[in-house]
Amino acid sequence: MNPNDTKWWGWGNPEKTYHLENRPHFWPHLRKKLSFPETPVSSAPDMEEIEILPCSIREPILQEIEKILPSDQIAAGSHDRIMQTYGKSYYDLIRIRRKIFPEIPDAILYPKNEKEIRGILEWAAQHSIAVVPRGGGSSVVGGVESSHSGHFHGLIVLNLKNMNRLLSIRKSSLLADAEAGIFGPELEQRLQKEGLTLAHYPESFEFSSLGGWIAARSAGQQSTLYGKMEDMVESLQLITPTGIFRTPGFPSTATGPDIKRMMIGSEGILGVISQASVRLKPLPEKKFYTTTLFRSFDDGIEASRLIMRSGIRPATLRLSDAEETDFIFSLREKNESFLKNVTETVGFNLFERKDFKPGKRSLLILGLEGSGKEVDTDWKTIRNLMKPFPVFQLGQGPADSWYRNRFENPYLRDILLDYNILVDTLETAAEWEKIPALYSDVRAAILQSFSDIGIQGIVTAHLSHTYSTGSSLYFILLAVPHQNHEIEEWQHIKKAASDAIAAAGGTISHHHGIGLMHKPWLRNELGEEGIRWLRMLKQAADPDGILNPGKLLPD
Amino acid sequence: MNPNDTKWWGWGNPEKTYHLENRPHFWPHLRKKLSFPETPVSSAPDMEEIEILPCSIREPILQEIEKILPSDQIAAGSHDRIMQTYGKSYYDLIRIRRKIFPEIPDAILYPKNEKEIRGILEWAAQHSIAVVPRGGGSSVVGGVESSHSGHFHGLIVLNLKNMNRLLSIRKSSLLADAEAGIFGPELEQRLQKEGLTLAHYPESFEFSSLGGWIAARSAGQQSTLYGKMEDMVESLQLITPTGIFRTPGFPSTATGPDIKRMMIGSEGILGVISQASVRLKPLPEKKFYTTTLFRSFDDGIEASRLIMRSGIRPATLRLSDAEETDFIFSLREKNESFLKNVTETVGFNLFERKDFKPGKRSLLILGLEGSGKEVDTDWKTIRNLMKPFPVFQLGQGPADSWYRNRFENPYLRDILLDYNILVDTLETAAEWEKIPALYSDVRAAILQSFSDIGIQGIVTAHLSHTYSTGSSLYFILLAVPHQNHEIEEWQHIKKAASDAIAAAGGTISHHHGIGLMHKPWLRNELGEEGIRWLRMLKQAADPDGILNPGKLLPD
Repeated sequence: MNPNDTKWWGWGNPEKTYHLENRPHFWPHLRKKLSFPETPVSSAPDMEEIEILPCSIREPILQEIEKILPSDQIAAGSHDRIMQTYGKSYYDLIRIRRKIFPEIPDAILYPKNEKEIRGILEWAAQHSIAVVPRGGGSSVVGGVESSHSGHFHGLIVLNLKNMNRLLSIRKSSLLADAEAGIFGPELEQRLQKEGLTLAHYPESFEFSSLGGWIAARSAGQQSTLYGKMEDMVESLQLITPTGIFRTPGFPSTATGPDIKRMMIGSEGILGVISQASVRLKPLPEKKFYTTTLFRSFDDGIEASRLIMRSGIRPATLRLSDAEETDFIFSLREKNESFLKNVTETVGFNLFERKDFKPGKRSLLILGLEGSGKEVDTDWKTIRNLMKPFPVFQLGQGPADSWYRNRFENPYLRDILLDYNILVDTLETAAEWEKIPALYSDVRAAILQSFSDIGIQGIVTAHLSHTYSTGSSLYFILLAVPHQNHEIEEWQHIKKAASDAIAAAGGTISHHHGIGLMHKPWLRNELGEEGIRWLRMLKQAADPDGILNPGKLLPD
Repeated sequence: MNPNDTKWWGWGNPEKTYHLENRPHFWPHLRKKLSFPETPVSSAPDMEEIEILPCSIREPILQEIEKILPSDQIAAGSHDRIMQTYGKSYYDLIRIRRKIFPEIPDAILYPKNEKEIRGILEWAAQHSIAVVPRGGGSSVVGGVESSHSGHFHGLIVLNLKNMNRLLSIRKSSLLADAEAGIFGPELEQRLQKEGLTLAHYPESFEFSSLGGWIAARSAGQQSTLYGKMEDMVESLQLITPTGIFRTPGFPSTATGPDIKRMMIGSEGILGVISQASVRLKPLPEKKFYTTTLFRSFDDGIEASRLIMRSGIRPATLRLSDAEETDFIFSLREKNESFLKNVTETVGFNLFERKDFKPGKRSLLILGLEGSGKEVDTDWKTIRNLMKPFPVFQLGQGPADSWYRNRFENPYLRDILLDYNILVDTLETAAEWEKIPALYSDVRAAILQSFSDIGIQGIVTAHLSHTYSTGSSLYFILLAVPHQNHEIEEWQHIKKAASDAIAAAGGTISHHHGIGLMHKPWLRNELGEEGIRWLRMLKQAADPDGILNPGKLLPD
């Protein structure tokens, strides 16, 4: 799907929605937890009603850009400008629904090659115009927000959608060279035709780009086996205001500090990622996804740690806490394979009585990928590792259902927003010894923040992206803010959660990045020295500071 | 062994040598290849004969250091100063034998904690004194050479041997916190008592330190499974002239460019690595090392590529070219298990006739580590992957012999140097598609360099440290330079080889680092932009440029 055709006020394909009509348990479950309006109280805004500022770049300067780009690669109409003002965070979507557009890009430029990118950057530096590089625009941390707080003479979005070619597949070296604007489905389709895969499946997969994944240090849902984006990049090309910078392609090297890693995660502040060579894998012979129920999240955490310690690398290891487990169960489909095998064999009620109680039980989705033999051996070993814990094997049904719907959650958010339900996600990571306290402290801090402002809310969490030394921990919040106070209340909750993450020794982001949203907590992690080093890099790459101003670096 | 008690003019333990008396085939094989003196023509120099410059740091400045360090942590005698002038490259050892000491540290300081390191760096910055951080001093690229080319008012070595404590083992998180000066054997012994391992075994293992491994991006002989040093560091502490810099400990994060990776590989130019948390593994249940003979290096390369492509991660995958295979065979022990099973079952001559001819055949040492089941399954899969290639299974004997002697090669070098034989190693890495040409081009360039200067020499090579996208390639050179022209001739050969590596698309170092020796080729890899970024980091961390001057950054 052309990124310009996606839902401008919400997620993904405008023709698509999350089908709740087949999930009879969902609304009752949610209403038991939260009081919220019986019928929608908010809806998709009308683009025509949005009041935007006129283009602030003076005409003669705008005309100069036509010497660099053909006019069909320049968009200055309100549709494109509104579409590309924000990313896809709750904060973004609420501002869109409330028609809050204090800043907006003056134009969108769609370069087709490195030379055009170079031209744009030179033009922007010369005229002091801010440049926001943009791929799929799915950032949930304000990484692509078109703002410059009045520091520049204008702002353009440099949109990479026209640089979406797969340049080559080098089969013997398991490498693909692609332009940064290529989206997940196109890339995977082309690779899979050759029996290969990148296997990078973030929830945003369908609407996010290779360059965006690299810029944000993205993690896919199978990262436990296949690694995060920083592990997948063999080399990349960065266009900075001072030059073109191609890192050499080596499987590994020892030529000083890793320059490539200074570009990965740079969130558009050092340059525009225009191309990358990424490391591929042959398509796995077998994918086996199954579910196990633990009596408690604690049991599941300990089992997960033992699995990772054993050296086995599941593709997916996703362990839900009690609240999330019940939430997932409430989303089961009518007459569907979800939980079918369980309910058929022992009956849903019976299985609830068997010490796997709502409000306690913890669901593990485990995915193994590899040769048939590997998958079988690993699953056998994992079942042995689970022996100390009372478990209930729920089988492949629920896992298949999760796998099928693994890119759909953001569509559900759009529905919940209609009911004035705040939906946000937070993610962190920490060493194993800190995980239990990190979980309970952050959860408690979020619940406290709800009570501070007198609103109802629930917090769900899961472990995912696990490592031998620790794990990522992902929180989903649902709350019912006071109408017209959504923004302030969200800010209060976000701050409370982030402070709790920092205090408990978690990182402020495991894979969403920093953007505008996490800046206040970066100093806590990197210290003054770390921030100073980053500033020096920024100074080296972008001396005029035109690239993605205000992002990543603390004020 | 106390680092100060090691052989100052050669490798390791002064009481130890490489036992050639049990290896009757070695000298005849070497004499067939090279003409060299019948008896030793060079020997360990006499330390007393070395003429050194007096301490160039003025007395009142030296006295100030006594306010920072107790006097028993300051060494200004000629023994310590001579010991710590050089590393362990051929170039270093030749200069020692020829008593060439144009530069020498003015004093050696042995701090015991971070505060003392901070004090030393402040003192050095104030008085413009160069500081060379030193762990085991085993660099083979001039990474620890005590030189400053007259740019400073003196030079001290900051030796970390007193900071060698294992601070804690965090079993549940599989992490160990240790001071940077800890050596391989001490670290592994302590970990293995707890059933854990770092599994980092570079050839220098017995005489190199954790901090040195991190500073140089070291790779161990089992890195194919366990990763390089940059993969093993969870967090580290760097003392710079501007501050103390502790990176946070996370299994992974997405907080902008990876600051930790800017320190790893920094070779002492950005700060002194004082501590690190490293990622551990449980000791493997089974270690299975075995050898396979291929008809040719090309066959072996292709089989290695297929093994890595399959997703299997052998601990060791070390494939020798024809020259090295014959060299290894010539080192087999009399009446020893090496090749015993082969010679007993088919006879050595018979097996030579079976299409595995000297000068053609290629030896693979394959090591698998993990659970018994994993090792067995992987070995089965690997034998299947080898099916397209005629192979001869030599079994575990030769592999066990290699494993037993895996830290001994540098002792053999000391013997060969006595016979005026030049021994040098070069290592690179490249993507699979470039490996065959890289191998033949570099080999040809080295042979050509021998003939340019009219000397005899042989080049051996092996693949090791393999990846899904490519491999490291390691060359060992033996040649007979003209006496008293060793240095110029070595320089000619080194330049020819390095130019060929660069031209064929290999990296100038996969795990030895840059130091002084590889500087001229760094610009080719990183470009002007990359060099500029590194300089900015240097400027941020060490504004007076006192740390390890002349290393890593090109002139």
